[in-house]
Amino acid sequence: MTGGRATAAAPVAPVAPSVPPETGSGRDAILLAARRAFTQRPYAEVTIRKIAADAGVSPSLVVKHFGRKEELFNTVADFGPAAAELLDAPLDALGRHMVVTLVTYRRTFKSDPLLRVVFSLGNQDERSLLRDRFHEQVTAALTARLPGHDRALRAELLAGLLLGLGATLSLHREGAGTLASPERIADLYAPALQNLITG
Amino acid sequence: MTGGRATAAAPVAPVAPSVPPETGSGRDAILLAARRAFTQRPYAEVTIRKIAADAGVSPSLVVKHFGRKEELFNTVADFGPAAAELLDAPLDALGRHMVVTLVTYRRTFKSDPLLRVVFSLGNQDERSLLRDRFHEQVTAALTARLPGHDRALRAELLAGLLLGLGATLSLHREGAGTLASPERIADLYAPALQNLITG
Repeated sequence: MTGGRATAAAPVAPVAPSVPPETGSGRDAILLAARRAFTQRPYAEVTIRKIAADAGVSPSLVVKHFGRKEELFNTVADFGPAAAELLDAPLDALGRHMVVTLVTYRRTFKSDPLLRVVFSLGNQDERSLLRDRFHEQVTAALTARLPGHDRALRAELLAGLLLGLGATLSLHREGAGTLASPERIADLYAPALQNLITG
Repeated sequence: MTGGRATAAAPVAPVAPSVPPETGSGRDAILLAARRAFTQRPYAEVTIRKIAADAGVSPSLVVKHFGRKEELFNTVADFGPAAAELLDAPLDALGRHMVVTLVTYRRTFKSDPLLRVVFSLGNQDERSLLRDRFHEQVTAALTARLPGHDRALRAELLAGLLLGLGATLSLHREGAGTLASPERIADLYAPALQNLITG
């Protein structure tokens, strides 16, 4: 539906802009409003006008920065760079790399690179373009990377481990996970990923 | 905020009503509409009238079945029975028990016993009564059950494993996880839980 981008084979794009994505300028307010809109509403109901109003800017400024609705969706729904960065390690060190990368990303940018796809499950009634993107850019990329048997199932469970880590850190903002170092979290959590990777 | 219920020590309540909770009668339509409302809106903005409209019933029918808003919230937001059932196994078999119980529950009732708390993260601006409930009834109950060091952190990560499993199964409704038996999923996923349980 959105075209199959060959994420697994793509060169590693840098995930990190030099400025946190959710603070400051009108551009960032637009991105935040767009992310909310596309995760909480069916695609057909999302309008540039409503996103602009939520961001406190004019519709023309939204179009100037991001183009029309389809382009804006493509910007907001792009899991490709995050997937490339999460997968950028040798197989025997990939579990730990994924945990440290995810936790560090969350702390640096005050935002989770994958978790927004889960919010889209609140719209129970319809197919979701955001979910299609996740399947293509994350699950399929994980599957392509795994050796051995049951690769699709193991990739889905790996995606679950990444989403679950983000979910629990977001749910327990004042909890033990917030105080722990990425390395300590990886000590406890990365073996689960590594076992699914190694098969 | 909602009172600390001693879930961990409570007798095991049956999770399973004899009828799936999200099909059929007006009662079930009300529960579904209420679950959506309380996860997607701030508590203060939820009204019985809106829930009734979404469920296609009268406001007085909602009150007849579930009482006023606070009672209805307590019904919808109760993770206690699910937590009790998930924890109902000896420590050395708890990881596998939790995975099989969660997957079986999801398949039996076409619904996840925990995952709705994650949808509430879409409301980024405010404290959430649903999250408070989850902390009390799930995370604290897990913490109380664990032996050894770093119990709070391990309990948060365990909660993440449970939420991540539900999230990925919901995200990949036509995927490999949907075709796999609960036992096969447990073979792959339960060691992650068991390692965090045993410490």
